[in-house]
Amino acid sequence: MNVLIVYAHPERRSLNGALNDFAVERLRANGHTVQVSDLYAMEWKATLDARDVRERETHAPFHPSLDSKHAFENGLQSRDIEIEQDKLRWADALILQFPMWWFSMPAIMKGWIERVYAYGFGYGNGEHSDTHWGDRYGEGLMQGKRAMIITTTGGWETHYAPRGINGPIDDLLFHIQHGMLFYPGFDVLAPVVVYRTSRMDEARMRSLRETLGARLDSLFSDEPIRYRKQNAGDYAIPALTLRDEVAEGESGFGAHIA
Amino acid sequence: MNVLIVYAHPERRSLNGALNDFAVERLRANGHTVQVSDLYAMEWKATLDARDVRERETHAPFHPSLDSKHAFENGLQSRDIEIEQDKLRWADALILQFPMWWFSMPAIMKGWIERVYAYGFGYGNGEHSDTHWGDRYGEGLMQGKRAMIITTTGGWETHYAPRGINGPIDDLLFHIQHGMLFYPGFDVLAPVVVYRTSRMDEARMRSLRETLGARLDSLFSDEPIRYRKQNAGDYAIPALTLRDEVAEGESGFGAHIA
Repeated sequence: MNVLIVYAHPERRSLNGALNDFAVERLRANGHTVQVSDLYAMEWKATLDARDVRERETHAPFHPSLDSKHAFENGLQSRDIEIEQDKLRWADALILQFPMWWFSMPAIMKGWIERVYAYGFGYGNGEHSDTHWGDRYGEGLMQGKRAMIITTTGGWETHYAPRGINGPIDDLLFHIQHGMLFYPGFDVLAPVVVYRTSRMDEARMRSLRETLGARLDSLFSDEPIRYRKQNAGDYAIPALTLRDEVAEGESGFGAHIA
Repeated sequence: MNVLIVYAHPERRSLNGALNDFAVERLRANGHTVQVSDLYAMEWKATLDARDVRERETHAPFHPSLDSKHAFENGLQSRDIEIEQDKLRWADALILQFPMWWFSMPAIMKGWIERVYAYGFGYGNGEHSDTHWGDRYGEGLMQGKRAMIITTTGGWETHYAPRGINGPIDDLLFHIQHGMLFYPGFDVLAPVVVYRTSRMDEARMRSLRETLGARLDSLFSDEPIRYRKQNAGDYAIPALTLRDEVAEGESGFGAHIA
């Protein structure tokens, strides 16, 4: 199978760099073909702006989504965006690997999402009717592909526990896992999270390689998170709220998992 | 009072641009002094990397937090970072204004947080003991200052309702409001959220200016969100989980509001 790893860390001689090398080797040893988009090494342009559209009428106001639609439909996207879109078309699985900075992905990776997920590619697809509100949340161009996060944090596991001060890790990652991965159609696997990175020693590294290795071995067989599909009956359309009889009395992120 | 608006939108002739102009005028009319960091206009460097440290020994591995600490302590930060830190020192209130892209702030603003919040400035302050785990979550250099988000989204308000498909707006903003604003010490006010931006007409604009105007008028008198302070007794240290008797039986983001 084809695996794309989008990787964001400014220093290859780091824990993240070591985990990236390990993941590539392990996936290849398992017979997969691997491409890495090393965003820092590529000097990825993080900022979405009018320069992302080729042959643009420069006096017209720039509209992030409409300009993106125009560029995507007419083959006028910046070349670096097209290359990444081709990698996503090619991939059977996407891995986002990053250090958690301020409870989200680094800016350079956020900019990869913003620019590569063009209107017509990452969003804006499908009909809007009484029973279908666009191809998203379980449908879309990434349908049939898998996605997984590998992330590291300096904080302790208890700080990210259900009653931990940072908030539960699954809730913190929801805007990525549900909002950026399930949205365009990926089946999302549980994340691999490495805590307390400043206290890494050889014993922990060994155990981490074992855990990560096992997760990579089952990348194409693990059961994805059971996020509810938007157009499969659980949501009222167009309000897109859960129907009364679904997850009755529940609210918040957890209610969107069946 | 002094108000800093950090603003991220690539087109000034936009709804966000109009709201930014309105906010500046209204705050000035109320007697405040206003500075705007217009990140797109400034061509803000979004990506945190080794170039953020002046006079760096280029062969040494770059460590995002330790290099930041070294640069901050020794006056070796990139000049653009120092300028923004001075604006934060000057400000009595910070407003983050941005279109919500993929359920978070634009990459260019995430990069402002990552680079301006240096080790020793945005985090990494205060003693660690049995009763105090660093100056954060209610303590820190931003203590005594206020912060508020103004954001826009194409989605409908119901999509962000407690049972809406995107997740509740307050939970989506938690990683920013709690994780990036309360963390370094800001008192965080309820956000101003504009929904369904593609359906904006003169009547809605009028109503929006009224709502936003009222919120700006009470910027220094509104009651902040009652996030629990880390070192005030609600959390066990160092696990940083809520003590059993606090918000008994609750978990998730909501449990961190008193």
